[in-house]
Amino acid sequence: MPVVERLLPTPEAHDLLELTREIAAEQLAPRAAEAEAASRFPRDVFRLLGQAGLLSLPYPEEYGGGGQPFEVYLQVLEELAAAWLSVAVGTSVQSLACYPLAHHGTQEQRERWLPRLLSGDLLGAYCLSEPQAGSDVTAMTTRATRTEPESGYVVNGTKAWITHGSEADFYTLFARTSTDRTRGMSCFLVDADTPGLGFATPEHKMGLTASTTTQVHWDDVRVDADRLISAEGDGLRIALSALDSGRLGIAACAVGLAQAALDAAVDYARQRTQFGQPVISFQGLSFLLADMAAGVQAARATYLDAARRRDRGMAYSTQAAVAKLTATDMAMKVTTDAVQVLGGYGYTRDFPVERYMREAKVLQIFEGTNQVQRLVIGRALAG
Amino acid sequence: MPVVERLLPTPEAHDLLELTREIAAEQLAPRAAEAEAASRFPRDVFRLLGQAGLLSLPYPEEYGGGGQPFEVYLQVLEELAAAWLSVAVGTSVQSLACYPLAHHGTQEQRERWLPRLLSGDLLGAYCLSEPQAGSDVTAMTTRATRTEPESGYVVNGTKAWITHGSEADFYTLFARTSTDRTRGMSCFLVDADTPGLGFATPEHKMGLTASTTTQVHWDDVRVDADRLISAEGDGLRIALSALDSGRLGIAACAVGLAQAALDAAVDYARQRTQFGQPVISFQGLSFLLADMAAGVQAARATYLDAARRRDRGMAYSTQAAVAKLTATDMAMKVTTDAVQVLGGYGYTRDFPVERYMREAKVLQIFEGTNQVQRLVIGRALAG
Amino acid sequence: MPVVERLLPTPEAHDLLELTREIAAEQLAPRAAEAEAASRFPRDVFRLLGQAGLLSLPYPEEYGGGGQPFEVYLQVLEELAAAWLSVAVGTSVQSLACYPLAHHGTQEQRERWLPRLLSGDLLGAYCLSEPQAGSDVTAMTTRATRTEPESGYVVNGTKAWITHGSEADFYTLFARTSTDRTRGMSCFLVDADTPGLGFATPEHKMGLTASTTTQVHWDDVRVDADRLISAEGDGLRIALSALDSGRLGIAACAVGLAQAALDAAVDYARQRTQFGQPVISFQGLSFLLADMAAGVQAARATYLDAARRRDRGMAYSTQAAVAKLTATDMAMKVTTDAVQVLGGYGYTRDFPVERYMREAKVLQIFEGTNQVQRLVIGRALAG
Amino acid sequence: MPVVERLLPTPEAHDLLELTREIAAEQLAPRAAEAEAASRFPRDVFRLLGQAGLLSLPYPEEYGGGGQPFEVYLQVLEELAAAWLSVAVGTSVQSLACYPLAHHGTQEQRERWLPRLLSGDLLGAYCLSEPQAGSDVTAMTTRATRTEPESGYVVNGTKAWITHGSEADFYTLFARTSTDRTRGMSCFLVDADTPGLGFATPEHKMGLTASTTTQVHWDDVRVDADRLISAEGDGLRIALSALDSGRLGIAACAVGLAQAALDAAVDYARQRTQFGQPVISFQGLSFLLADMAAGVQAARATYLDAARRRDRGMAYSTQAAVAKLTATDMAMKVTTDAVQVLGGYGYTRDFPVERYMREAKVLQIFEGTNQVQRLVIGRALAG
Repeated sequence: MPVVERLLPTPEAHDLLELTREIAAEQLAPRAAEAEAASRFPRDVFRLLGQAGLLSLPYPEEYGGGGQPFEVYLQVLEELAAAWLSVAVGTSVQSLACYPLAHHGTQEQRERWLPRLLSGDLLGAYCLSEPQAGSDVTAMTTRATRTEPESGYVVNGTKAWITHGSEADFYTLFARTSTDRTRGMSCFLVDADTPGLGFATPEHKMGLTASTTTQVHWDDVRVDADRLISAEGDGLRIALSALDSGRLGIAACAVGLAQAALDAAVDYARQRTQFGQPVISFQGLSFLLADMAAGVQAARATYLDAARRRDRGMAYSTQAAVAKLTATDMAMKVTTDAVQVLGGYGYTRDFPVERYMREAKVLQIFEGTNQVQRLVIGRALAG
Repeated sequence: MPVVERLLPTPEAHDLLELTREIAAEQLAPRAAEAEAASRFPRDVFRLLGQAGLLSLPYPEEYGGGGQPFEVYLQVLEELAAAWLSVAVGTSVQSLACYPLAHHGTQEQRERWLPRLLSGDLLGAYCLSEPQAGSDVTAMTTRATRTEPESGYVVNGTKAWITHGSEADFYTLFARTSTDRTRGMSCFLVDADTPGLGFATPEHKMGLTASTTTQVHWDDVRVDADRLISAEGDGLRIALSALDSGRLGIAACAVGLAQAALDAAVDYARQRTQFGQPVISFQGLSFLLADMAAGVQAARATYLDAARRRDRGMAYSTQAAVAKLTATDMAMKVTTDAVQVLGGYGYTRDFPVERYMREAKVLQIFEGTNQVQRLVIGRALAG
Repeated sequence: MPVVERLLPTPEAHDLLELTREIAAEQLAPRAAEAEAASRFPRDVFRLLGQAGLLSLPYPEEYGGGGQPFEVYLQVLEELAAAWLSVAVGTSVQSLACYPLAHHGTQEQRERWLPRLLSGDLLGAYCLSEPQAGSDVTAMTTRATRTEPESGYVVNGTKAWITHGSEADFYTLFARTSTDRTRGMSCFLVDADTPGLGFATPEHKMGLTASTTTQVHWDDVRVDADRLISAEGDGLRIALSALDSGRLGIAACAVGLAQAALDAAVDYARQRTQFGQPVISFQGLSFLLADMAAGVQAARATYLDAARRRDRGMAYSTQAAVAKLTATDMAMKVTTDAVQVLGGYGYTRDFPVERYMREAKVLQIFEGTNQVQRLVIGRALAG
Repeated sequence: MPVVERLLPTPEAHDLLELTREIAAEQLAPRAAEAEAASRFPRDVFRLLGQAGLLSLPYPEEYGGGGQPFEVYLQVLEELAAAWLSVAVGTSVQSLACYPLAHHGTQEQRERWLPRLLSGDLLGAYCLSEPQAGSDVTAMTTRATRTEPESGYVVNGTKAWITHGSEADFYTLFARTSTDRTRGMSCFLVDADTPGLGFATPEHKMGLTASTTTQVHWDDVRVDADRLISAEGDGLRIALSALDSGRLGIAACAVGLAQAALDAAVDYARQRTQFGQPVISFQGLSFLLADMAAGVQAARATYLDAARRRDRGMAYSTQAAVAKLTATDMAMKVTTDAVQVLGGYGYTRDFPVERYMREAKVLQIFEGTNQVQRLVIGRALAG
């Protein structure tokens, strides 16, 4: 696979990308196809990434984070995604699960929990969606009721579409502490071994099969008061703010996946001959590949632009929605076209492109469907 | 599933469609998901369709065919595809495999073999593509060498991407009888139990998994002289002419598949509520569904226009390429969007739309990739 | 220009198309560019079409109409549009303006007025839209107040975007006779010389400049009671029903315009050489032309399918919306691409394609914007 | 018009953008519509831009240039384009015309001519294309023949599609000095008043009508030897290198034009009411606007990514082609959709969006058609 020439802010970032590419090439890419076919979650890979310092890049060094700008973190994510999407998505989810604690926790909470989260010692999950609360987060019904006389909460409800459900060591949970539609939600950090936490059979998905997705049942789960992140009622604000970052993660994953599909297509088109020539020499195919490459480059530039705004402290919420929408629609198109370039071969599991196409689809759906992204952008335009 | 209101030429055609819908609803639809998941070829379904007279519709009644116009045959195919694509594709392949004998065989050949083929008693396969001869049919290297002193041929080579490979009872074979690039190919009808015929392990495909696809090895296979269809050297002409009809079959399959995906999406969007309303009431989703519906209707009209030209004896080769291109690109888009409408649910195997999306992709590839269709249309424009 | 091979129901229809092509080639095409550049309305061309019997094709012979099926009428319209869009649109508007009288007038009303309308002796306009009532027809404020003691109405208000405004001899008017949102509108047939009718300066449009479009002011215009078509309150139902037919007219116009653009592009691409070859021999361009041709053929099949349903008395309202949406979006794309094929030459007024592109845009807007078509289709899906 | 929040490298760049916006709002925007309608070239505006230092931004300060990074220059161009495309394109052409001298001229040549060019005192044109040499530059036939005994050249031939033809004060000319297909071209700087230079009637274009485009006739035009830029035979290399920069200029222009169209559409959609609400509150329209905004943002990020690579001395040729392709296809779509948002109003010359749409089309054509951009990208992929 050719190396993507990247605009990076520091020599350190170059080293990080180099390291990532090595790990991706040696540890991820060779195992992806088989683990995906077997729906086997690669828990050990996350430990490896944690040890290499790749699980905590955008978080402060004082808690063991990498202290890297978002534009660097996202390009690392992109390289991981080009080798194994489930791992890259997991890395993004880990980052998302740490976000509320890292950005909204007290000094004490951060000191207590953040280091083990950032080291990858513990794997996280992000519990926001519910069966009846997808695009409409405010329809959430899972509730955290204050217990008496002792302080603390008891949680009841069901969360849905939880990446790392049943595999994670901690769950960043959003639950209702009041019935107020937008200000009634709160955020908690819950250990996986808390009694009452249960998991449904993993979803049988079209792709991303090595990444476990389950419903998470909360059945009288007791949560101590000190596990509340920020104040009661701050949940929605925290969730939305975390999603802005999470969407950039998905955008980067989409670009990595699409780059892998483009590389596979170009590689095939250079080698396959028909009518006595490599098929890449036919304009019909070459123009298709050119459009694919243009899409990949444009989407990469788009998420980087949003990330640089985030890094500079500028508003970037709309830009994050644009990046997620642009990159994942592009990835769906590019992976579908990559199968086309390989023709019958591309339709078989002997080549990775059919898997890429199956994986691309989920990117248009999670962390806000692309319809939700359009809502976000449209609202910004309406002013 | 709602009934598509169809423009049909005769009351008999209405009855045929009615019959087809009944069989599809009762015998096909309930079995599709499980057989596809298990990659199990439904041989018995083809016997059933044969008995119902649905395997031979566009062929003459004197040989046991249905004597139906192509516009009726294709709509039957569309209904089958809406219930189970592998079966519809198999029906189209059966029709394709019968085409050379029916249109180019001698009176004697037709009388001898056609009735058993048309009754569905025997299942057929169409052996044209080779590993190195896909879009470029003339790169074919499988050869049929005349034997001496007795008349007949001995065939050697490998055919690729053969639908019904190892399942079929007869193989319609194209092989070189001379080195002339375009006039060196000939067509034969070969029994499955002829010594020397062998099959590779079935391809592990992204979708259409109940439909077996294999390489077919021809290893000193002896074929009698009376199994040559038309004269030596007529093979390319026959193959291309058969493909014109075959492409219309695929177009109809694509429309059926897309209609099924649209129906599933509409059904879900009427029942799923978010923000207190059925999601179909949101314009963002409703406009997406409207575009899907427009695509399905336009593609149906397009294949029917080509079929009616064929039925009237007008030229229809370009129209067939347009129909294949339009319908299969549409099906890829509509099935992908149907998954989007169902969101996370659509991405799981609990709903059929993820399967539809995986199945749609092959339609853009086989019986001439959509790039080949553009070549065909472009050449017609160049005059 | 090549002749499009058409599926037509009768030998008479073939003759009609032949006649249309002759008139289009000899009387329309040669004058179009100059009249459009000068924004000169070709009143005489409509007289000519009337004399040739081409202005009244879908109406009954007993009133001087052509008694032709809609599928024939629309193909005539398509041929006119390929030669001169303003004339084809005018023909469609004439047909629309006659629709309420022809379909909802009394025997006496039809006998009195229809022959002169259908002969093209009188030119019509269709007064529905208002400055504040575009997509939302029910926001109409023009009112027709009953006069006392004598029977009749006095009309006040302003109609907008009226094709043939100030040029027409009669105006088919929709106005409120009550405040009921959907049942308060009524339809009238009004002579152009009725006192109080006034016209604003013609709109300065991007294209279709030879077709006059104005606001029409109704200032105490007295209308006799016998000019009410159908009962008071039937206006919306009549208007919507007329629009179903009108949309098919616009779809046919769009296909004709796109066919003309495709023909011009193919013609240029065959003659223009670069890199030592006709540019049509380059796949990059040839595939673009193939997609254009596929779009044109698919859209033609789509409007014809709807028309044949209308001709057989089947429901066709959704199909008409699909046809209008599909054909006009296609025409916008195909005309834009045609300019691209001609490159710099295409961007100048020395070739007709830049005009085609400017003209195409209005087709996506009038007789229901394509957003309104999606509303119509989406509502049908919602059931 | 809202202010686009920009990522800029320096406070000086912020000031420059601020200055640009002021000039654009006060001096350009108010005059654009009328000058375009009258096809009047705004020579004085270029003097004004020169005086403000906006015509020479990416060139060295020692010759009077602005010494700005390309990422700043392009954003200035974008702001100009949002106010008046003809002026922005002219600014980009001026920059292109200066490129060969600035990058390939000798110290002496630069000192002699560059200051007056960069100050905007002199207006430039770039003479590369010919009637038979568009996409295929190497088909050029204009020749510069060495004169004897005195050194120098005499030029004969015709250049086509020359922006500022007949208006410019100097012409950067490419002409054959030998018959070698790729190494036979050379570059010259020629004064407008050199005898033998003549101009055809300006092209009558669909848009960009205030920007004069002509054929330039070279009829025994004598050019001194010291006006040769770089060595004989270096012409193609210089031209292609200049085009890489020029394409980024066009990409920035496209983004500015599209931003203006988006702003106009959003503005209208906020004010226009139908069904009792501002139309921007309808998801069908809001999602369309969201897709437009996403396109604009993604294209801006794409050209900036390429510019930053150029600024850092990295390879950026493929990225420039991607940026030109992405931005201009986007601008065509966004301007067309902006007309749609305004409906009938958008189709009239009372609003600027119809002009934007007419102007957008040329951006897909000049400085390498988008087919040529795909060629460039495809070749890079083929390796």
